[in-house]
Amino acid sequence: MMNKPVNTSADMKKAVVSLGHSALGYTTTQQRDAVKITARALADLVEAGCQLTITHSNGPQISMIHKAMTELRRIYLDYTPAPMCVCSAMSQGYVGYDIQNSLKAELLSRGISKTVSTILTQVTVDPYDEAFYEPTKLIGRYMSADDADVEVRKGNYVQEEPGKGFRRIIAAPRPIEIVELEAIRTLADAGQIVIACGGGGIPVIEQQHALKGASAVIEKDAIAGKLAADLKADQLIILTSVPNVCQNYGKENETPLFALSVGQAQNLAADGQFAEGTMLPKIEAAIAYLSANPGGSVLITSLEAVGAALKGKAGTVITAQG
Amino acid sequence: MMNKPVNTSADMKKAVVSLGHSALGYTTTQQRDAVKITARALADLVEAGCQLTITHSNGPQISMIHKAMTELRRIYLDYTPAPMCVCSAMSQGYVGYDIQNSLKAELLSRGISKTVSTILTQVTVDPYDEAFYEPTKLIGRYMSADDADVEVRKGNYVQEEPGKGFRRIIAAPRPIEIVELEAIRTLADAGQIVIACGGGGIPVIEQQHALKGASAVIEKDAIAGKLAADLKADQLIILTSVPNVCQNYGKENETPLFALSVGQAQNLAADGQFAEGTMLPKIEAAIAYLSANPGGSVLITSLEAVGAALKGKAGTVITAQG
Repeated sequence: MMNKPVNTSADMKKAVVSLGHSALGYTTTQQRDAVKITARALADLVEAGCQLTITHSNGPQISMIHKAMTELRRIYLDYTPAPMCVCSAMSQGYVGYDIQNSLKAELLSRGISKTVSTILTQVTVDPYDEAFYEPTKLIGRYMSADDADVEVRKGNYVQEEPGKGFRRIIAAPRPIEIVELEAIRTLADAGQIVIACGGGGIPVIEQQHALKGASAVIEKDAIAGKLAADLKADQLIILTSVPNVCQNYGKENETPLFALSVGQAQNLAADGQFAEGTMLPKIEAAIAYLSANPGGSVLITSLEAVGAALKGKAGTVITAQG
Repeated sequence: MMNKPVNTSADMKKAVVSLGHSALGYTTTQQRDAVKITARALADLVEAGCQLTITHSNGPQISMIHKAMTELRRIYLDYTPAPMCVCSAMSQGYVGYDIQNSLKAELLSRGISKTVSTILTQVTVDPYDEAFYEPTKLIGRYMSADDADVEVRKGNYVQEEPGKGFRRIIAAPRPIEIVELEAIRTLADAGQIVIACGGGGIPVIEQQHALKGASAVIEKDAIAGKLAADLKADQLIILTSVPNVCQNYGKENETPLFALSVGQAQNLAADGQFAEGTMLPKIEAAIAYLSANPGGSVLITSLEAVGAALKGKAGTVITAQG
């Protein structure tokens, strides 16, 4: 097979890509199928000359693994519990494998031979982060009141959603430092494709010289913004379920936005235009990245619209000056 | 904190380290405790001037995860099965996290700041490898005859051990190519510490452009030898449960061996001196590595004896000429 000439690392544009739930699905088979579609969008970006560092969500995956490890202990009493940090590490392996496997295949089918790998990543958080006092991140599926009671007795927080049941709710502290940043940077600088900070990274707290796993989850968009800033990436690409950021989203006068300055984005955020837990963290990540890297640009669009966005026909682009 | 001067990558000796079951334990708590002791031996090697690429076994870990994913499906019917390749990926995340976390901490406690990261690794195998026709690798715990029957109906192989029960037995094909080798090499060349090819790597079979997960397991010693050869490492260090390779092991006239040539090792192997599944694969890995890299050396010793081995007071050293 003839390989196409591949851009050298010097003339590639460094991009950090953040993948959401829709890029991965919920079960093992859904994920295996979903990553094939995701891989096409990622390969389009590679063909457009981007060096990619990819991060992804892991909500359904960590929830599945946590449930599995809990069931294991019910049956086999000699196994010990798997804390959230261990489940997070497993989920990074699981999702990373499917992405690197399918992206490698998609690239090869286009005649592009590139190294794609996953770096298992820890991210330090501040034990005094106010998020620990007021957990906000819902994780896992709905539970019965009885199961919720068990969680509370274990010291975990739950929240009731009327008519639907209970869900576990955990802290989403701000990322402080990406522990394996130098490894990620070394591979990115070599022009390779890297998957890192999966699920926001394993949250850890510094205790003397050790890093202790924290019962928390880091927003994947927050870590994507931080990773893009730390790597001095040229672009932060947030792939989500909508092709554009919208003003008056979901209302009659909904208007897709195509270009925004940081100032405009801040004003719209202050105006309550972006929903907490969905679009707001993306906008906040964009602002954080552009504040650190004013020369960069942010693209927010859907997986399906990446091709059109590359031609400037879809997606919302945010830059320092708009 | 003052950091000690760290060797630059140019004057470091490249070593591939293979860790066995005793370095990791069986349950989550055992592993968390075991890796702290393992980290001390690894940190001794770093202080002795080695750049480490670390590989490890994952038998108990993949077995635990496979069981957990099986139990999950019994309870939650909407989840789909997790094939061995997915369990292997999860186990690489799980073990890699614990090793990189504890090694980083051990190094920091010695005033050494080094990047330690895990690269999720796939390894291609030949679908026509004779191992697929005659599986030899026992995995998981003992099962009842009923559970064994279920496995057989799923197309899996089982083997009875009289008086103990049944265990699943899977193919252990020869590794052909380490898919993420360039990522591992890039980090190793940068003088960083890399954990890779965990559990022998996820075995995959090339199908057109795709890499399909295979129901198999790659011997961790076989992959360690291949990794050391591919990286042109100066040394292959196999850490196991005994301080030395022995002649007449377990017999009255047992004699520890301190230095061996490849020829001597081959003769002893042909003489049936090394047990299949334990010492033999280590000797075979040593021979394979030294055949590709005649200037290198192999050290086989226990975790506990690494310090003494570094002073030439323990361990078996194998070189091309002895």
